Amino acid sequence: MYFTPPLAKLIEEFQRFPGVGPKSAQRMAFFVLSMSKESVHDFAFALTDAKNRVKNCSRCFHLSSEDPCELCKNERRDRTTMCVVAESRDVIALERSREFKGTYHVLTGLISPLDGKGPDQLSVRELVNRVGVEEVKEVILAINPTIEGDATVLYLTRLLKPIGCRITRIAFGLPVGADLEYADDVTLSRAMEGRREV
Amino acid sequence: MYFTPPLAKLIEEFQRFPGVGPKSAQRMAFFVLSMSKESVHDFAFALTDAKNRVKNCSRCFHLSSEDPCELCKNERRDRTTMCVVAESRDVIALERSREFKGTYHVLTGLISPLDGKGPDQLSVRELVNRVGVEEVKEVILAINPTIEGDATVLYLTRLLKPIGCRITRIAFGLPVGADLEYADDVTLSRAMEGRREV
Repeated sequence: MYFTPPLAKLIEEFQRFPGVGPKSAQRMAFFVLSMSKESVHDFAFALTDAKNRVKNCSRCFHLSSEDPCELCKNERRDRTTMCVVAESRDVIALERSREFKGTYHVLTGLISPLDGKGPDQLSVRELVNRVGVEEVKEVILAINPTIEGDATVLYLTRLLKPIGCRITRIAFGLPVGADLEYADDVTLSRAMEGRREV
Repeated sequence: MYFTPPLAKLIEEFQRFPGVGPKSAQRMAFFVLSMSKESVHDFAFALTDAKNRVKNCSRCFHLSSEDPCELCKNERRDRTTMCVVAESRDVIALERSREFKGTYHVLTGLISPLDGKGPDQLSVRELVNRVGVEEVKEVILAINPTIEGDATVLYLTRLLKPIGCRITRIAFGLPVGADLEYADDVTLSRAMEGRREV
């Protein structure tokens, strides 16, 4: 034990974060000690405040301090297209691209039997409800091309098809700026598969 | 503005830390939201607790929650050799090597006129006092071989020489496990300069 107990505890706390190893945790803890008392207090407050106030929107399950969230409340969003994503951070990524103007639905995860995650642990029932009640014409599945993602897409498609709306999935292929030579086989075969008339 | 205000604030707070960019800050903030309320509270408490309780030891200026610190209080440490370091984390690094059994003195920085840091901003006066009062026979300067480090060593040597104790500086040379071929010129010339009889 080289660190004085409160400092050791703080380093341990920082080390729990993703991507933070012992060295970074140590650096961050020392940085805290070099901050002013007010800044440390502000940071501690920001932590508890975010945890207390940010909840899943009761309609779309996006993380927000308001309920319904800013996106659900926005009257200018096109309510006929709904984008289904796995996580709240995917909403942020899509919003950043400024491409999509419809509404969102966050599944809060993907179907993954290995992690004990089935449709009941996700907001699937609420999605089916919304698609039935709201006048949704197209459901866009913006879900990662992984095993869990593909399984979830398959499950959702079977569930939503009978409702009668259009169901699409975002395109997979070569990312913009990438080089064909260095693309992996699966990406290339997906890109061939998804080829379009020019 | 894509994030809900409390979340945006938290991301901003994380981004202030050294080595944390926008992406890592976002990841860490989302991690906070996925933690239990108790864990977030514990983390917030650890922050303010470390800031409130960890102070510079009044004798050696090492960061500690006790005063005098654990190292100064330890009766088994050899009080005839004193190791002078720039920062508290240097004490930790040396303690980890288990090589040194004497006492420490943390300067809380190095002389750096460009950053407006002179000897008065460091614990230099307290060092001179300690060397005079305590029965120190050897002062080991474990200070980085940088411009600021060299300037500080020069300054301290002039100040401490008249007191009559032995003054040494840690060796510089090839790090253990390194390859001569890839060592930089300055390190190599320092290694040649510091050569010893075998």
